[in-house]
Amino acid sequence: MRILITNDDGIHAPGLFALVEGLNAHHELSIVAPEQEQSAIGHAITLLQPLRVKPVNLRNGMRGFAVSGTPADCVKIAVAEILTEPPDLVLSGINLGANAGIDALYSGTVSAATEGAILGIPSIAVSLDTFTDPDFTASVHIVRRLVDRASAGDLPLNSALNVNVPALPWEEIKGIAYTRHGASRYEERFERRVDPRGNSYFWQTGNTHLLRVELGTDRHALQQGKIAITPIHFDLTDYRALELLGKQPIHEETM
Amino acid sequence: MRILITNDDGIHAPGLFALVEGLNAHHELSIVAPEQEQSAIGHAITLLQPLRVKPVNLRNGMRGFAVSGTPADCVKIAVAEILTEPPDLVLSGINLGANAGIDALYSGTVSAATEGAILGIPSIAVSLDTFTDPDFTASVHIVRRLVDRASAGDLPLNSALNVNVPALPWEEIKGIAYTRHGASRYEERFERRVDPRGNSYFWQTGNTHLLRVELGTDRHALQQGKIAITPIHFDLTDYRALELLGKQPIHEETM
Repeated sequence: MRILITNDDGIHAPGLFALVEGLNAHHELSIVAPEQEQSAIGHAITLLQPLRVKPVNLRNGMRGFAVSGTPADCVKIAVAEILTEPPDLVLSGINLGANAGIDALYSGTVSAATEGAILGIPSIAVSLDTFTDPDFTASVHIVRRLVDRASAGDLPLNSALNVNVPALPWEEIKGIAYTRHGASRYEERFERRVDPRGNSYFWQTGNTHLLRVELGTDRHALQQGKIAITPIHFDLTDYRALELLGKQPIHEETM
Repeated sequence: MRILITNDDGIHAPGLFALVEGLNAHHELSIVAPEQEQSAIGHAITLLQPLRVKPVNLRNGMRGFAVSGTPADCVKIAVAEILTEPPDLVLSGINLGANAGIDALYSGTVSAATEGAILGIPSIAVSLDTFTDPDFTASVHIVRRLVDRASAGDLPLNSALNVNVPALPWEEIKGIAYTRHGASRYEERFERRVDPRGNSYFWQTGNTHLLRVELGTDRHALQQGKIAITPIHFDLTDYRALELLGKQPIHEETM
């Protein structure tokens, strides 16, 4: 398959390199990723500045393209300007740190896959649930399986897969669960500090204390040592609320 | 009501000021907005840098807070650090330019409202479908109506409203439509230029040619001269694809 690989940790991140090494033998890879780390960039695109695209060499000598923008920019510009034809698959990751539950909304890794889905290309985001000493082996294993499924035309179109992998060796992983995004959020916390000039500033601490973990969610699967696979779409409409707002789906009030 | 006002065009944008002037007489307003324009920033939050919060005076002498971050940062830090208690309502806008269809995904204006919904606060994003000579009168009218509905407890909880207003005087607006987000996308276009040193760069042109406008969508309502109100949620799960992926909602493959 022709696979576009991107991420939000930047083109030189080890998680991206693990994907490249794991798939290179059997697939035609194009690597287009942000020049710099873009964590928590969400689905941002760059409109106020122009984008630059620089060829770079990866550690194994392969050629990639570093983009002065966000993960979503990378997918857009790869498809529109860099690749001669659209890829068969967009792969984003492997991210350091899970992108489960509400976190998926803030995730550049996930937004790259969403952008692929918007363009009608099967897309997968992969995140590993650790920030330290990453072992990407299990993540590469599951990606290979999913790429095989994509290759068989067996992945849903117009929705992306958000894959979260527990930080365990492949043999110790307890299973694969198809999950929904947990809606539970973290306790909001900011840490206030004072700079040498006496002015205060705030660090967003994030991800400190999860208020609730619901059954059937990606976060719950991770806690059980399972790989969580959540299909995600890009229609933000709340259809239940839409029904409540008007009796018919498109109700018109008179002015 | 206690209303938190934010936006993505920056704290000194005329659209935010129009909201403040339109609501100030009857409500207790807190203004916490980005220091700088944050268009197309999506649901980004700032984790790699600290946030600074600066008191600023608006044109009418009212006090606001400028945050060195994104719209979602503003809502988070307002609720966690700036306000003494959570607001009854989050209002984001009035944005210059529609945030309809796929564009809502890239919109900082919408993400501020989504962030409010995540925090369990009724939230409304408002965008005016023009970039030039904005007349905010109709937008303020519809916001006042919706604030009254929120005040009566008549807005859906845990989902935000994404409101798009056509660039027409209030008397010429053809109605109010409850809509879904159009899934149709724009033709991707980048404009390639060459800098004085001979290096090429790309401007993302965006929003040039819409591929399709579907009935019942926000974009279609705007084309008919109607105000489009789309309820949006923050659960990205594609439940239809989830059913297809496994026979049961949570299907587990054996390893």
